[in-house]
Amino acid sequence: MNVGFIGLGQMGKAIAGNLIAAGHRLRLWNRTPGAAESLVREGAQLAEQPAGVLEGAQVLMTMLADDDAERAVLIEQHVLERAPRDLIHVNLATVSVGFAHELARRHAEKGLSYVAAPVFGRPEVAQKAKLNVVVAGEREAIRQVQPLFAAIAERVWPVGDEPERANAVKLAGNFMIASALETMGEALALARGYGVAAQDFLQILTSTLFAAPVYQIYGQLIAEERYAPASFRLQLGFKDVRLALQAAEAVHAPLPFASVLRDHFLEAIAAGEADEDWAALARLAQRRAGLGRSKR
Amino acid sequence: MNVGFIGLGQMGKAIAGNLIAAGHRLRLWNRTPGAAESLVREGAQLAEQPAGVLEGAQVLMTMLADDDAERAVLIEQHVLERAPRDLIHVNLATVSVGFAHELARRHAEKGLSYVAAPVFGRPEVAQKAKLNVVVAGEREAIRQVQPLFAAIAERVWPVGDEPERANAVKLAGNFMIASALETMGEALALARGYGVAAQDFLQILTSTLFAAPVYQIYGQLIAEERYAPASFRLQLGFKDVRLALQAAEAVHAPLPFASVLRDHFLEAIAAGEADEDWAALARLAQRRAGLGRSKR
Amino acid sequence: MNVGFIGLGQMGKAIAGNLIAAGHRLRLWNRTPGAAESLVREGAQLAEQPAGVLEGAQVLMTMLADDDAERAVLIEQHVLERAPRDLIHVNLATVSVGFAHELARRHAEKGLSYVAAPVFGRPEVAQKAKLNVVVAGEREAIRQVQPLFAAIAERVWPVGDEPERANAVKLAGNFMIASALETMGEALALARGYGVAAQDFLQILTSTLFAAPVYQIYGQLIAEERYAPASFRLQLGFKDVRLALQAAEAVHAPLPFASVLRDHFLEAIAAGEADEDWAALARLAQRRAGLGRSKR
Amino acid sequence: MNVGFIGLGQMGKAIAGNLIAAGHRLRLWNRTPGAAESLVREGAQLAEQPAGVLEGAQVLMTMLADDDAERAVLIEQHVLERAPRDLIHVNLATVSVGFAHELARRHAEKGLSYVAAPVFGRPEVAQKAKLNVVVAGEREAIRQVQPLFAAIAERVWPVGDEPERANAVKLAGNFMIASALETMGEALALARGYGVAAQDFLQILTSTLFAAPVYQIYGQLIAEERYAPASFRLQLGFKDVRLALQAAEAVHAPLPFASVLRDHFLEAIAAGEADEDWAALARLAQRRAGLGRSKR
Repeated sequence: MNVGFIGLGQMGKAIAGNLIAAGHRLRLWNRTPGAAESLVREGAQLAEQPAGVLEGAQVLMTMLADDDAERAVLIEQHVLERAPRDLIHVNLATVSVGFAHELARRHAEKGLSYVAAPVFGRPEVAQKAKLNVVVAGEREAIRQVQPLFAAIAERVWPVGDEPERANAVKLAGNFMIASALETMGEALALARGYGVAAQDFLQILTSTLFAAPVYQIYGQLIAEERYAPASFRLQLGFKDVRLALQAAEAVHAPLPFASVLRDHFLEAIAAGEADEDWAALARLAQRRAGLGRSKR
Repeated sequence: MNVGFIGLGQMGKAIAGNLIAAGHRLRLWNRTPGAAESLVREGAQLAEQPAGVLEGAQVLMTMLADDDAERAVLIEQHVLERAPRDLIHVNLATVSVGFAHELARRHAEKGLSYVAAPVFGRPEVAQKAKLNVVVAGEREAIRQVQPLFAAIAERVWPVGDEPERANAVKLAGNFMIASALETMGEALALARGYGVAAQDFLQILTSTLFAAPVYQIYGQLIAEERYAPASFRLQLGFKDVRLALQAAEAVHAPLPFASVLRDHFLEAIAAGEADEDWAALARLAQRRAGLGRSKR
Repeated sequence: MNVGFIGLGQMGKAIAGNLIAAGHRLRLWNRTPGAAESLVREGAQLAEQPAGVLEGAQVLMTMLADDDAERAVLIEQHVLERAPRDLIHVNLATVSVGFAHELARRHAEKGLSYVAAPVFGRPEVAQKAKLNVVVAGEREAIRQVQPLFAAIAERVWPVGDEPERANAVKLAGNFMIASALETMGEALALARGYGVAAQDFLQILTSTLFAAPVYQIYGQLIAEERYAPASFRLQLGFKDVRLALQAAEAVHAPLPFASVLRDHFLEAIAAGEADEDWAALARLAQRRAGLGRSKR
Repeated sequence: MNVGFIGLGQMGKAIAGNLIAAGHRLRLWNRTPGAAESLVREGAQLAEQPAGVLEGAQVLMTMLADDDAERAVLIEQHVLERAPRDLIHVNLATVSVGFAHELARRHAEKGLSYVAAPVFGRPEVAQKAKLNVVVAGEREAIRQVQPLFAAIAERVWPVGDEPERANAVKLAGNFMIASALETMGEALALARGYGVAAQDFLQILTSTLFAAPVYQIYGQLIAEERYAPASFRLQLGFKDVRLALQAAEAVHAPLPFASVLRDHFLEAIAAGEADEDWAALARLAQRRAGLGRSKR
């Protein structure tokens, strides 16, 4: 398919690469054009303006950092305004449910199709085309873009017509990951207090009851105290937990764990740790108990 | 081996059954002797007093509900006092680290070997001899009782010499499970607030990032709102989170998530839900958001 | 002085009444003009449009519910745009620090003076001209409006030049009140659990260590379980705790108590209690412990 | 009256001094006898054993640090056992409700009268004979010891027959103080984040809505960052919040604020601050926000 693709961070670049590899034709735009170089060598076109990616496009795909970045490109730089009538916009970004709602309305007003398609998976998973994509939007539009999902995802999870539903699931999922990080940190503070090595403790739990990717991948980082470079920055984790709280607030759902997480993220940010991996939440839990680095 | 076995609740009965099936010779005692019937038919002997199980025993195995039950049998009913000098006591129960410490001292004073061996696994896992056993104590004693572990466990995880370490790991692990229950409950409150079905939401997460036994087994109970009969009663979950907090307190480790859990357990108990499965924590999280039963 | 006054809720009406009584000349506007009737009888003029209050005004005073209401009047209905160059705007409302910051900038651009002057005190305190006013802004502007403060306040508390400081103090203060409500609720849940009457318990504490207006006034409401009609609606308390959290977030300050409060407000709102007095937080704390209404 | 008095810490000494000054005859015992010197000069007798204070005593008064200290003296050192039949024991200490219950039973078995009389007030308040005494026990016994209360208290607050009620009130009250400390700390973290001086902020609030002794006395310590020497050690504050949680647990009352406090106390203790004044909780709240000492 002909795809306009905007947003070439770690995730976007990996996804665009897989789309090209699967034979789709991409026109790219990124705020800093250098990120596009290798993709251009693989055959993609580079647009000079965001709206330039729309030329000949059947589908617009966006993968930007947050509401502000999406708003800047789609609205302030007129991408939606200039979009052709039959375009399908597939939004892979993790945006707020409030903005998801606003986007759905704006697309409807323009006669455009809007598909919310936030993804689960770190950059290395994106690279292997093994993402899990949560999808919501018009059934027919979703059907048409299946070839794109096929090129990037292990599996696609449809959750209904209203786009914001996919965002709610994504935010709830990211909250669950943050919750697992904090849980491991606190459990470690307890176990280490009795002289159990971090490595041993996490191996027992993540080989048995908690033998799931989230616990295994992050358990490894935590046991090795390897918080930099970040695959997912603590600052972004904070953003997502705030969005989860905000989405929950709109439906009057208290999330006591998310509230605790928000406080801990803020404490870590105040301590200058915003750019480390969000797994560093677990270090904070240990620091509160007066525990420094593990002995090896 | 010749084993004296005390404590025939759901877990104890399953474990004792597997020991007999593996050819070990058991003398049993239980507060209510009816529980021993089927095991006696399989060849076990029934003692009339707790200390009666010591007759000819190489190993004493106990699987009682809590510190009080262990104390009643071991100390008040004189089991330790009457134990032969070379006996190895393998304690499978989840006791407090304080009591673990006291037991270690009492055994040492008597010249008895003490092995703390708390287990991870619900009754159906015990039945299949697939428990995970966390073990701490004298190396030689642990070596000698391997045949017993072989008959009941998928894997044995040694964590050092001081028995209390195994209890710290067990309590930290149970805290992690309770944390996962609360996390699922809160995430569901958010997702359901946007009309996503509980079943759909939990399937997405527990098939992907959270594809671990704890999330899958409990996710199923939560999605189906099947909280009775309990495999593990909420009251017992409360006990374990309290023990985790108490163990952490002794090493000055704050556990903010465990504190939230403690409050939620109390709220559920005040609401008359102590005898339901501890997965019912997830219902409470949804009730706080004004959500009743899911539509099917 | 000649004062344009916008916003005649319970608080605004009481304040405007005292200004008139002190001899100031008021031009009023309110979304629902009925609220102005009694004040017009006392000599105030009624404007037909918000900007109409500016006619001949030396000072503009606003007392609106929140950021949105302030924005609607000041910006969307062009009040700031039409304000004469030497006007001093005294903003009594509890707005976010973010909006306080924006307003300061907008006034500076127009050459207007902006004084943030949020007040502490319930409507009955406003009526008695006994408010405490926290003030921040240009020193000279503050000096000029002293006659107005004299007519409504027991005392004026200057906290510096940047207007947002006054808002930070106000939000921190309202957080402290909410915190006192929750504290009384939890303490009562404990005391009542042992059969101590709510009335007795609160009298002991609020006559001694906690002999302060906040504890005495709200302690009375809580002891009598008198949550309607509301002097300050729970929904508004929620708004203010959210604004406190948001203001604290901008300076990376975690507020764990405020996070707990936010969750409890949401739970009360989900239970349909948004329009009761915010003291109803204390009922929720008791309900969690399974306690119903007190016996008298 | 003839009074046997045990426990001469800061509080006990001040109370004993006032009893002597009012003409009562005291026989004293303290673990470290040096503490009794000045009181002996004022006319008190010194016993060599705890039970020695009973000689000729109509009333036994105890003011010890905690359950363990009370148990050591009353039970292990046989004071209760040797008490004459018509003795009234007035226990001023802050003990757990569980131990209060046990003591009530033990006294009843011996035919002794037991009056729980925990006090509110710091050492300087005790010195001035301005304590508030919360009293529970048999009406007739309470009536008889009024002359003693008259010598030490500003006011006596009876709360019923069951002694544990007085302890529940005392623990609930101490929880309220700890809650006020944390609240001030968090509010300050917010206000200071916007450049408001600690001194200014606390003066505004504690002169107005929060004009109560607890806020004024501790507000002063917090504004001046004067946490040593301690009037009431953080470690003891922790003990009392734990006792409040434990008492509440027995009646199934969740106390979310107390849970947060418990975690913060532990964090402070892990940081080596156990011996500072418990007002240091407020410093921790500011430290979490990355704030160091205030500028003066």
